[in-house]
Amino acid sequence: MSAARLIGVGVGPGDPELMTLKAMRALGEADVIAHFAKAGNQSHSRAIAAQHLRAEVTELPLYYPVTTELPACSKGYRDAIRNFYDAAAAAIATHLDAGRTVAVICEGDPLFYGSYMHLHTRLAPRFPAEIIAGVTGMSGCWSAAGMPMVQGDDVFTVLPATLAEAELARRLADADAAVVMKVGRHLPKLRRALDRSGRLDRAIYVERGTMADAKMIPLTAKLDDEAPYFAVVLVPGWENRP
Amino acid sequence: MSAARLIGVGVGPGDPELMTLKAMRALGEADVIAHFAKAGNQSHSRAIAAQHLRAEVTELPLYYPVTTELPACSKGYRDAIRNFYDAAAAAIATHLDAGRTVAVICEGDPLFYGSYMHLHTRLAPRFPAEIIAGVTGMSGCWSAAGMPMVQGDDVFTVLPATLAEAELARRLADADAAVVMKVGRHLPKLRRALDRSGRLDRAIYVERGTMADAKMIPLTAKLDDEAPYFAVVLVPGWENRP
Repeated sequence: MSAARLIGVGVGPGDPELMTLKAMRALGEADVIAHFAKAGNQSHSRAIAAQHLRAEVTELPLYYPVTTELPACSKGYRDAIRNFYDAAAAAIATHLDAGRTVAVICEGDPLFYGSYMHLHTRLAPRFPAEIIAGVTGMSGCWSAAGMPMVQGDDVFTVLPATLAEAELARRLADADAAVVMKVGRHLPKLRRALDRSGRLDRAIYVERGTMADAKMIPLTAKLDDEAPYFAVVLVPGWENRP
Repeated sequence: MSAARLIGVGVGPGDPELMTLKAMRALGEADVIAHFAKAGNQSHSRAIAAQHLRAEVTELPLYYPVTTELPACSKGYRDAIRNFYDAAAAAIATHLDAGRTVAVICEGDPLFYGSYMHLHTRLAPRFPAEIIAGVTGMSGCWSAAGMPMVQGDDVFTVLPATLAEAELARRLADADAAVVMKVGRHLPKLRRALDRSGRLDRAIYVERGTMADAKMIPLTAKLDDEAPYFAVVLVPGWENRP
């Protein structure tokens, strides 16, 4: 019944109900379900999709290499990651060569800051490949917060909190609305950048955006500087207009 | 069974299968389904959701006023639009006051460049309100194109093609990846801005991104300057790394 086919399946931001009908169908049709996880951890995308996996499906967990001993900008780190994606693509290719349909499940949207892209670029030239768009983590966050974000001709930007303070401030001032990702230990710097850009008063701090224990507060009401890596800050651009 | 509740329901970018399970459930539970449309046209969001509407549901179409005779920046236009949203909110409030659940269906994601926001800001202070995030039009486009967009610490931006050429060029050069919306008659200007910013060679032109008759080609391969208002241009930031 099935045929060699690679499918990047976005399973949305966390709430299993924010999966699409198309993703659910792909999970039911796939012979093999692949998912990324940190070594020693459960895969987040698998947890989101769990209730839709067939009992007899083949699972292919893809464990990121432990690279904490290497600086992220080093050649050693880049080599380790590249080798990991090469090996992951080879493992998937073995299934595709055997005529199986492989669904790679991805948190959020597969082509928006997702690991799936590294497999797609390696495999899509050789095998039929398809992407199933998903609800992004940022949509999940602003929806849970009930925060109108952008309207009309607003300029919107997504920034990593890893940028230098002056660069963050410049870019925050230059956009109508922004989402800042990967907040973590960068929160004090991000606060200063938001203040310099005149955006601190509107900023919303979000942790675990679409989980049952989500935390969403104005950043000015957050009194400590503790933030997990995946915390985000929303800067809505839209005001009550027209 | 039901209770006064407003729900902004994202129904995704066009393919009915890109609706979420949560959106489908909301459509099944709502007493009233409201949808925006141009006067004299079918509602796009209703067409996406059509197969999930209950036969006995009350429908509340919200027709945008015909304002083509007014310049979009004029006070007359702004007044007409504000009056329209006021009246739409009042019509919905009548149902909410009667204890009904009203789902406002929205293409894409309700809080990302969507009309629903105008209802939310008017009604959420008075009634329980909830947002169901949806797959955005832009995710639908880059997924249909199989185009990896952003990765790692990429800076991403969304720009309206209405900006001046120099401003478009500056912003395109200042981001790793971009989506340009509302291309329409601005295509010749956008081409020049992409060329000035060094991004023309990577730009992908997309029409009707998640429809069966979608058109996706490198912008350099598009030989004419005809583009519908809702055409978008994708500028991927991600290259084959690591």
